[in-house]
Amino acid sequence: MAEPMDYASAGVDIDLEGAAVASLIGSLSASIRPAGTPGAPVDLPGGFGGLIEFGDSLLALATDGVGSKLQIASQLNQWGGVGIDCMAMNVNDLLCVGAEPIAFVDYVAVPKPDPATHAALGASLAEACRLARVTLAGGETASLPGIVTELDLSGTALGYVKKGNAITGEHLQDGDILIGLPSSGIHSNGYSLVRRVMEHSGMDYTDDAPFNVASIGRSVLHFDGKDDQQFTLGEVFLNPTRIYCDPVVDLLHLAESGEAGFSLSDVRAICHVTGGGLSNLLRLHDSLGWHIDAPLTPHPEFEWLQVTGGIETREMYRTFNMGTGMILAVSQEHADAMCEWLNQRMIGTSIIGKVIDHGHRVTHAIEGVEFSHY
Amino acid sequence: MAEPMDYASAGVDIDLEGAAVASLIGSLSASIRPAGTPGAPVDLPGGFGGLIEFGDSLLALATDGVGSKLQIASQLNQWGGVGIDCMAMNVNDLLCVGAEPIAFVDYVAVPKPDPATHAALGASLAEACRLARVTLAGGETASLPGIVTELDLSGTALGYVKKGNAITGEHLQDGDILIGLPSSGIHSNGYSLVRRVMEHSGMDYTDDAPFNVASIGRSVLHFDGKDDQQFTLGEVFLNPTRIYCDPVVDLLHLAESGEAGFSLSDVRAICHVTGGGLSNLLRLHDSLGWHIDAPLTPHPEFEWLQVTGGIETREMYRTFNMGTGMILAVSQEHADAMCEWLNQRMIGTSIIGKVIDHGHRVTHAIEGVEFSHY
Repeated sequence: MAEPMDYASAGVDIDLEGAAVASLIGSLSASIRPAGTPGAPVDLPGGFGGLIEFGDSLLALATDGVGSKLQIASQLNQWGGVGIDCMAMNVNDLLCVGAEPIAFVDYVAVPKPDPATHAALGASLAEACRLARVTLAGGETASLPGIVTELDLSGTALGYVKKGNAITGEHLQDGDILIGLPSSGIHSNGYSLVRRVMEHSGMDYTDDAPFNVASIGRSVLHFDGKDDQQFTLGEVFLNPTRIYCDPVVDLLHLAESGEAGFSLSDVRAICHVTGGGLSNLLRLHDSLGWHIDAPLTPHPEFEWLQVTGGIETREMYRTFNMGTGMILAVSQEHADAMCEWLNQRMIGTSIIGKVIDHGHRVTHAIEGVEFSHY
Repeated sequence: MAEPMDYASAGVDIDLEGAAVASLIGSLSASIRPAGTPGAPVDLPGGFGGLIEFGDSLLALATDGVGSKLQIASQLNQWGGVGIDCMAMNVNDLLCVGAEPIAFVDYVAVPKPDPATHAALGASLAEACRLARVTLAGGETASLPGIVTELDLSGTALGYVKKGNAITGEHLQDGDILIGLPSSGIHSNGYSLVRRVMEHSGMDYTDDAPFNVASIGRSVLHFDGKDDQQFTLGEVFLNPTRIYCDPVVDLLHLAESGEAGFSLSDVRAICHVTGGGLSNLLRLHDSLGWHIDAPLTPHPEFEWLQVTGGIETREMYRTFNMGTGMILAVSQEHADAMCEWLNQRMIGTSIIGKVIDHGHRVTHAIEGVEFSHY
């Protein structure tokens, strides 16, 4: 092909999205709820939003949808994973402030309701609730034939954290250690580019994946018991997003208890690697930098996408999680202990880098993978 | 026209929606969160769902969208009211269990982001937060050109109520009095039928409304200061849904304090009149009935829709709020005091009927307006 593909050429205008969101936020005003009362907004040092006061706790809401990954699910009529994707996108965001997710509601918009699709979605959401350990506290299905041409799925998760226990990044320091938790594949970001590469490749989602899918740790959900089988490209791309509540919530509880020698103050920051890839790290601190010297191995579909789409390496790391779905920045002193504890619960977890005072940028073992803007 | 219009003929298949939602719910399983811990589900006597435990409180989530009213907003590029609609649909639902709304998140799906549209939405959401007295705790804008053809807006509201203070309908009894709170117009339900009538009428949304718009109490939002002007049909149909937090939350606080002579136990049930119209009352109790003998006057657009669309009266009351957006069932002893207190804060509030042990049905001063199924 003439030009390398990138996320923008796949039809996603990030600047326009940013301008639109900025317009919306610019029109908002301060909350009417006074400090010290239920619902009063909380400004955390790291600039995190979305937390509100509630007695001795802070409550956090996260809202997000599955995005264009749904178009592949629609095309294949495979809805078994997207409830997990929807849950994951929301609860993983809550974990980043140290909040424990407790409840979830879903919003489904369809051109026309279909009981079979909804049964599959319900099963997927039920599995998601079990994995995230939350209560499904409601939901809405809207028939909007004039607005949606195929199913849209989004949701909202509610979490809480004790006052004083929120994780904000404010105690980050030079030398802190980065622990990488493996992703289960592409998760729920970058699908406009995935779909564009697929179009370009001339392959179908029902074709066998031209790589060894099971060569690397996966979400146990959809690949379990299939180690010796071949998978289609559709199955690979629809593998659901990993939910990190187990083990991250447990690690936070353990830290709070002090029973393992480390405390909550040893967990400095948590990053959910979503759209923007490793550049998400830049959101955690205003001035410190990040160096990834021992990255987790990306799943083979990332290499296939890169080669097939002629995508530059830096663009891959700015669009996809490249094998690492969540990153914990922890104190040097207790990094090995925490990593070992996490790895026993999520195989493939390892130390991938460190916090470094080399300017507000992300650097990487692969030359050229460097970000100084989110 | 040959046949009278109804909601089903306007393209909304209520049975199919019900089957789809039942399929989804049937696939769910019990929450993993044990009773007595944050997030554990709460079964209220009246069958209300969506509440979870949180210390000495119950938290409630409500999620809903604006629906096909958005298509009129799109057509006219008028977004100033839909944020209020979205807020209202959610916080008014929370009020029905006696929960005070404290926070809100929005979800916007667009084919392409547009800063001007988002600025208008932001202003509308800001006004909505002020009216509902909640904190905007986040939001998401998704660009989904393959899924939505025009803007979809939904949201999730979070509320709380002290344990033991939830309003469940369990203390409803024969003779309880119904207080009707006026709506501001069509609110956010029945718009598939509105749009169908408009198509049939041959009129445009930019045409002057062929009735006296300001002849009856309105939401002050969009009609304020315009009493002597003519309004377009589009302005009438886009008038935002009334938010009932003020005065309902205040009434509940007053009842809890006991300062006005009545207590929370005198507020027996609260009904948000949404899709299904007066038949919503049937959800509040398993066996008691409801008689509306002094209904509030419907706004003139309801009559215009009925006449223009040739819609039967019963269908009007099953599809639209017909002038009453919220109904409180209260004890006979304190009904006058509560109604007077409410009317001082929301003009047009009055006693509209009573709870009556005449079977599980709704009857009405207008013969034929009767419902025994939701």
